[in-house]
Amino acid sequence: MQNIPPQVQSMLAQLESYQGQLQLLVQQKQKVQVELNEAKKALEELEKVEEGTVIYKTVGTLIVKTDKEKALAELKEKVETLEVRLNALERQEKKLNEKLKELTAKIQAALRPTAG
Amino acid sequence: MQNIPPQVQSMLAQLESYQGQLQLLVQQKQKVQVELNEAKKALEELEKVEEGTVIYKTVGTLIVKTDKEKALAELKEKVETLEVRLNALERQEKKLNEKLKELTAKIQAALRPTAG
Amino acid sequence: MQNIPPQVQSMLAQLESYQGQLQLLVQQKQKVQVELNEAKKALEELEKVEEGTVIYKTVGTLIVKTDKEKALAELKEKVETLEVRLNALERQEKKLNEKLKELTAKIQAALRPTAG
Amino acid sequence: MQNIPPQVQSMLAQLESYQGQLQLLVQQKQKVQVELNEAKKALEELEKVEEGTVIYKTVGTLIVKTDKEKALAELKEKVETLEVRLNALERQEKKLNEKLKELTAKIQAALRPTAG
Repeated sequence: MQNIPPQVQSMLAQLESYQGQLQLLVQQKQKVQVELNEAKKALEELEKVEEGTVIYKTVGTLIVKTDKEKALAELKEKVETLEVRLNALERQEKKLNEKLKELTAKIQAALRPTAG
Repeated sequence: MQNIPPQVQSMLAQLESYQGQLQLLVQQKQKVQVELNEAKKALEELEKVEEGTVIYKTVGTLIVKTDKEKALAELKEKVETLEVRLNALERQEKKLNEKLKELTAKIQAALRPTAG
Repeated sequence: MQNIPPQVQSMLAQLESYQGQLQLLVQQKQKVQVELNEAKKALEELEKVEEGTVIYKTVGTLIVKTDKEKALAELKEKVETLEVRLNALERQEKKLNEKLKELTAKIQAALRPTAG
Repeated sequence: MQNIPPQVQSMLAQLESYQGQLQLLVQQKQKVQVELNEAKKALEELEKVEEGTVIYKTVGTLIVKTDKEKALAELKEKVETLEVRLNALERQEKKLNEKLKELTAKIQAALRPTAG
């Protein structure tokens, strides 16, 4: 790093920070995506269940009786919440990718040998 | 890599790609095999259950009442699906192993010092 | 380490040991914190459940019928136990951090070049 | 390794192989120990359950009605099986440790400079 001008060094540090944030975002997105897929699959299966079927839900290590209507309402709310969170994460990812692209261009320009 | 002829370099890159694919296939096969063993074990236990026993199935974090007949049908279908997937993965693995063997032979032939 | 006086070397070894203990403590604390959050969330959900609702609890791979009153009592006890453990871990962490601070100061003093 | 006599090299390779086996054994032992502790804890809790309490057991992703007597019998058998396996693993570990000790002594003797 010795021959790199200080302002470029600071941009490189910023770049690394953005890349770390992006990696974290991508991990969070994958986690929410997995949860969302599971919730949607459960919703689909639950909709096929006959009215009046005995249904329980897990509450930590407890199992509590519920019914199809309540279970459907809770699952739908969960799906919505997860979709909102996923959209927020995707917007953040897009913005961060744009910042990364701009910063990379700036760094390349700063490091480009200036025409004599 | 400098003294290796370009066509051999390209074969070595292909070899590495095959090895990566093979590793992935083996991991997928193991995952399906574990799921299949669990499903078969559950099927075996379920078959021993008396007719009329109360049975529930898990649907995500919900628990939904079912009966022995339905549960057996679903488990048998799951076992079949997993067996089909396992067979497909095994065929892919076999083909990939053959390709790897052929390519390794080609590379060895290309690198063998030609008799003067 | 050759030019470091033996008593400083021994303090550095002690420092490393404290850091290892601290890392372990922090991991334990996080584990207890996660369990506590889950138990509190389950307690909150359970309190909203109507009296007389059928409730089961998991005992290893078994599921045993209980009732709201018993389940509440067990969950409250679990929350209390976890809070006691969390407090104990936090006290240990605080003490260890103080020891680390003191030892670091001692090491810095010992390594400081003495004024001629 | 160049100056190490071949028979010592072969003993060192054997030593490494023993160490690998030992590591594997210790991991298996820990896994069985964890399962055993869980089964014993479940057994203890189950014994406190009132006669006639509704009990289910998990069979893969299914939940099947059972009763206290059957569940107790199955858990006791599981505990016994795990204890037998744990004992076998501990015997293997002990034997392997003895072999390791003997081999280490042999290697040290072989590497000891012989008195002129």
